[in-house]
Amino acid sequence: MKVITLLTDFGLKDTYVAQMKGVILEITRDVHIVDLSHDITPQNVMEGAFLLYTAVPYFPRGSIHVAVVDPGVGTKRKAIVIETPVCFLVGPDNGILIPSAKLYKDFKVYEIKKDICRQSIGSTFNARDVFAPAAAFLAKGYSPEDIGERIESFVDMDIEFGRKEGDRIVGKIMHIDGFGNLITNVRGETLLKEKDFGSVLQLNFENKTYGIRFLKSYGFAEEKELLLTIGGSGFLEISVNKGNASELLGAKVGEEIFIDLY
Amino acid sequence: MKVITLLTDFGLKDTYVAQMKGVILEITRDVHIVDLSHDITPQNVMEGAFLLYTAVPYFPRGSIHVAVVDPGVGTKRKAIVIETPVCFLVGPDNGILIPSAKLYKDFKVYEIKKDICRQSIGSTFNARDVFAPAAAFLAKGYSPEDIGERIESFVDMDIEFGRKEGDRIVGKIMHIDGFGNLITNVRGETLLKEKDFGSVLQLNFENKTYGIRFLKSYGFAEEKELLLTIGGSGFLEISVNKGNASELLGAKVGEEIFIDLY
Amino acid sequence: MKVITLLTDFGLKDTYVAQMKGVILEITRDVHIVDLSHDITPQNVMEGAFLLYTAVPYFPRGSIHVAVVDPGVGTKRKAIVIETPVCFLVGPDNGILIPSAKLYKDFKVYEIKKDICRQSIGSTFNARDVFAPAAAFLAKGYSPEDIGERIESFVDMDIEFGRKEGDRIVGKIMHIDGFGNLITNVRGETLLKEKDFGSVLQLNFENKTYGIRFLKSYGFAEEKELLLTIGGSGFLEISVNKGNASELLGAKVGEEIFIDLY
Repeated sequence: MKVITLLTDFGLKDTYVAQMKGVILEITRDVHIVDLSHDITPQNVMEGAFLLYTAVPYFPRGSIHVAVVDPGVGTKRKAIVIETPVCFLVGPDNGILIPSAKLYKDFKVYEIKKDICRQSIGSTFNARDVFAPAAAFLAKGYSPEDIGERIESFVDMDIEFGRKEGDRIVGKIMHIDGFGNLITNVRGETLLKEKDFGSVLQLNFENKTYGIRFLKSYGFAEEKELLLTIGGSGFLEISVNKGNASELLGAKVGEEIFIDLY
Repeated sequence: MKVITLLTDFGLKDTYVAQMKGVILEITRDVHIVDLSHDITPQNVMEGAFLLYTAVPYFPRGSIHVAVVDPGVGTKRKAIVIETPVCFLVGPDNGILIPSAKLYKDFKVYEIKKDICRQSIGSTFNARDVFAPAAAFLAKGYSPEDIGERIESFVDMDIEFGRKEGDRIVGKIMHIDGFGNLITNVRGETLLKEKDFGSVLQLNFENKTYGIRFLKSYGFAEEKELLLTIGGSGFLEISVNKGNASELLGAKVGEEIFIDLY
Repeated sequence: MKVITLLTDFGLKDTYVAQMKGVILEITRDVHIVDLSHDITPQNVMEGAFLLYTAVPYFPRGSIHVAVVDPGVGTKRKAIVIETPVCFLVGPDNGILIPSAKLYKDFKVYEIKKDICRQSIGSTFNARDVFAPAAAFLAKGYSPEDIGERIESFVDMDIEFGRKEGDRIVGKIMHIDGFGNLITNVRGETLLKEKDFGSVLQLNFENKTYGIRFLKSYGFAEEKELLLTIGGSGFLEISVNKGNASELLGAKVGEEIFIDLY
């Protein structure tokens, strides 16, 4: 049984995601379909790329990851499949798949052939008509060559990671989770190399300064305390214990944060 | 492996939908269970009927579709199974299943027998106690005659589709999706017969007039532009590119829209 | 095929729940994974315990229930597996599993061994690194002794149930569902022993008094009527037909309610 994961900005209020699953199950039943997330900020390709990149390593070898955040749907942008030594990635050629592909040394990009796609009049629901069939055929054992044609050029993308600059760490908010935690692009090790859990640091955000403790987990924080932890994906997170950091700081995806080390 | 889909107005905050799945899996494990949507406007039978009707065609032959939007639960309304040449439909006898049944030429209606239902004191959770077991027994290979009794009369329902009237198209808002897009009852072809993609039209709504372009996809629209597209299910949708059409227009499910062609 | 259920306070906006599923599927594919609920009020262990307790009986023999509402994650609290004659329960040693365990006469508690857990630097995502592997190994056929060590002491918890006191029933709000219905800790039978469906009663809440009918289902209520029903899990629920009881009464989880019988 193969695993197919789905990441989109479609939400779950509607039947869009279900229609993708119907099309997959029409082609193969020998599959586990897992929803990665359907609440990417609409059309935010970078946020989708980041969440995909942080989730892919937890799935078994041979998994097929479909990611559809696709402002260019219906235009001439390509539909692609990427083969890595560990998994397949399926989605639009807008960069969303590339940071995940680069987790593995070698990867090959294929443009999806038209003849495996569903026909639908007028509509441009590529997630259901192009990406779902491509993923299902891969799950069924088709090779990338069977369903696509090798291409050499594609839209590149890199996730910019937070870094130490002098006495501070400079990072960016990549994602705000359902509880208002700010997930940054700073790897936990970047701070762990400089400071132990329990350290008191200064967070600079939007020209304001906040005292903040670097803690191993929420269990060590006071109620309503602003804290810095290493999240489940290994990146620094700014949180409020039993509160909402996004509301407290008025933060948005894409904004910069600075952590003074001394 | 059979496919069972679930459509309700229960939401996912609670364990109601999970309890339905537990009951299904008690009867058979040889099944894929797919959530169609659990965010139908509470007790809006017509909206549920419309979303079911637009999603059913994307599922494989033999699928079993359970739809429970059921203001009459606990009263004397019947619980029914419908057999069509392509799929089974399971739910209350309030019309919600009928537009989907009419997609296929012949269909037969059965009242679900009491002896396949779960007993529960006082409670009237038919989705778990009546509809989930019925669907599971069908997935296990029971025939409709095994679990129900053929009936000739049932509550009828038709989806009223938008139509051309003189120089305008008259339609209705059937559903508002998670992004505020207004899904209408006007089939894409109704407009495509009159106008090409790229045409500039006039939308009349609640005594106001809006210029609106008919576009193949969002990729061709300006930011914040009001646009008309053909959605994934083949119906006209009114959207705002990177915005919320429902908020902009103050629109609600059930309201009428008019598109001036000339 | 075994059944694993997941109950958390993680929400579904993020990939946290999906990462748990990836880890499970890495260990075994021979499993149905069902989301019980991921919208427990953050860190509300009692609410999680109650929802688990009300859902567990609807799952087949041999199911493995993972419940993670875990304010103490990363501290020294234990990670446990409970074996009952009917099912397995997996989660933190903070009481969340105990009311469900007590549904069955005998149960045994095991502390999860470190060597079955995933390693991850800094992070304390036990749901993915400890509880998901434990559940997956049980689904694969490992015994509790294989993955844990028997312990005699654990954090106890009881759900306090509503009761008759003189001429009134005294209860508490345990959970507010997605529609604003107030699910109480009063078993339906407690009221059914005293009053028939159709009775008019008095609800006392926060020093105000409300007339309320005890009805078999919503189908018997007027629009916007405040009503008392027996919910799907067998407990009394206070609802407003086509309305929101939580908003009308200004109610919160944990508050007391009184129902005057005479």
